[in-house]
Amino acid sequence: MSDTPIFRRLALLGLGLIGSSVARAVKKHGLAGEIAGHARSAETRAKALELGFVDSVHEDPAVAVAGADCVMICTPLGSYKSVAEAMAPGLAKGAIVTDVGSVKGSVIRDLAPLLPETVHFIPGHPLAGTEHSGPESGFAELFEGRFCLLTPPPGADEAAIDRLTRLWQGMGSTVETMNAEHHDQVLAIVSHLPHLIAYTIVGTATDLEDDLKSEVIKFSATGFRDFTRIAASDPVMWRDVFLNNKEAVLNVIQRFNEDLTALQRAIRWGEADKLQDLFTRTRAIRRGIIDANQA
Amino acid sequence: MSDTPIFRRLALLGLGLIGSSVARAVKKHGLAGEIAGHARSAETRAKALELGFVDSVHEDPAVAVAGADCVMICTPLGSYKSVAEAMAPGLAKGAIVTDVGSVKGSVIRDLAPLLPETVHFIPGHPLAGTEHSGPESGFAELFEGRFCLLTPPPGADEAAIDRLTRLWQGMGSTVETMNAEHHDQVLAIVSHLPHLIAYTIVGTATDLEDDLKSEVIKFSATGFRDFTRIAASDPVMWRDVFLNNKEAVLNVIQRFNEDLTALQRAIRWGEADKLQDLFTRTRAIRRGIIDANQA
Repeated sequence: MSDTPIFRRLALLGLGLIGSSVARAVKKHGLAGEIAGHARSAETRAKALELGFVDSVHEDPAVAVAGADCVMICTPLGSYKSVAEAMAPGLAKGAIVTDVGSVKGSVIRDLAPLLPETVHFIPGHPLAGTEHSGPESGFAELFEGRFCLLTPPPGADEAAIDRLTRLWQGMGSTVETMNAEHHDQVLAIVSHLPHLIAYTIVGTATDLEDDLKSEVIKFSATGFRDFTRIAASDPVMWRDVFLNNKEAVLNVIQRFNEDLTALQRAIRWGEADKLQDLFTRTRAIRRGIIDANQA
Repeated sequence: MSDTPIFRRLALLGLGLIGSSVARAVKKHGLAGEIAGHARSAETRAKALELGFVDSVHEDPAVAVAGADCVMICTPLGSYKSVAEAMAPGLAKGAIVTDVGSVKGSVIRDLAPLLPETVHFIPGHPLAGTEHSGPESGFAELFEGRFCLLTPPPGADEAAIDRLTRLWQGMGSTVETMNAEHHDQVLAIVSHLPHLIAYTIVGTATDLEDDLKSEVIKFSATGFRDFTRIAASDPVMWRDVFLNNKEAVLNVIQRFNEDLTALQRAIRWGEADKLQDLFTRTRAIRRGIIDANQA
């Protein structure tokens, strides 16, 4: 533990992949004096104590957040309202309330009105994850070398932003701030649409006749195998992402659909040049990502 | 080199990722007495000699195949006809002619009529590859632990199938035979559609406004980054795949489109159960693949 933890008491509401990884990283780097955890299921609470990544577990969110100077919501977006209502009575004055959800506009819209004005509300989103879920699947290194995006509402307290920034930096992340609407647009393209497409294509395969399906599983070449990994991600979390970022996601589906229809037409009419031209242009984006050290 | 190479002289027509990997694997395991290479470009031929994975290079396919008991076409599907016409005069009696193309129906349809009846034509398809292209990108281990599918036409010589099977097994692959039409259906789902989708989604991102595009590159989270890797695959090879497996690919695009439209509708109308149900079912396919040791 470091000499000066950034927070005295960190309350984690939700102890799945992300919550349990935050706990492990915070412990590893001594970023909080103690960690209080809340999970709805008794099984998860028992598992968290057994694995030892929290110091205490609480069935009641209000008890978990009592005395905490940082509260981080790590549950699926769909449960934010009920979690916020349940914890609000316990919130300490001056506490930072943050989250790790993949959508930020709806979080600000839904959560802000439920929080007392005495807390600092700074939504966050670590761009990290795996296709595994649950308290056993977390690990302390999950956020190392990854971005964490903060979307403080206008007028948010600079000192609070700074403390939260140092927390994520302490876990190994690069922190950037941006406005929530812009965040949701960017994520709709880099994360939400790819997940939706992966779910769709694996779903299409799921509906195949049994003999064809078993061969698809057997001979899953590189392309399809990558999609199945993405499509094995947590169903509840992703259901909530799509429902909460509806507008931006429907917008990019529309663009994607137009582009797929154009390709479909090019295949049908044997337009070789059109296909080759697109396939050549897409290489440039990959090079951009490799140059940006994200590959 | 092993005491009993399977082939006396292997001729490789095309020395890109796959051709150069075959050459390296065959050399590593001593599966052929000598390897003759052909590539259309003088630069590639010089590179192949410099890297030393072939024993000789030839501008004329007919010279490359002269005296070869195995001829393997490793060029993009679109050049098969011209390669076959050019090499036909040089083919030795009793030679096995095979290929590594991702589509098999069109190969049998287009190639068989161009070959003398004195050779054994056994099309093949190793389910292996990377997003890199060219003679420098090959490596001897590319086929280890991967499937190689052979699609011998009805009445094909059993001894020839057996020899070719041993060649791929010698490179570390598991060999299965199936009919060409069935191969093309399975591959349309496990490989061709995923590549088409990846090209489309990365193309959609390519067309974004510049500031949004640079952020997409910067914050490319897991999902999108996987797609860009797939969409960096060889443009000419993939153009030819789609043009040569048109029917099966258009059929799966159609299915995919219906499924995507249903999801799009579920998002628009907030049908949470429908989303969660699909996202849960897709996990089962992933488990199937993990159980089949392909993940």
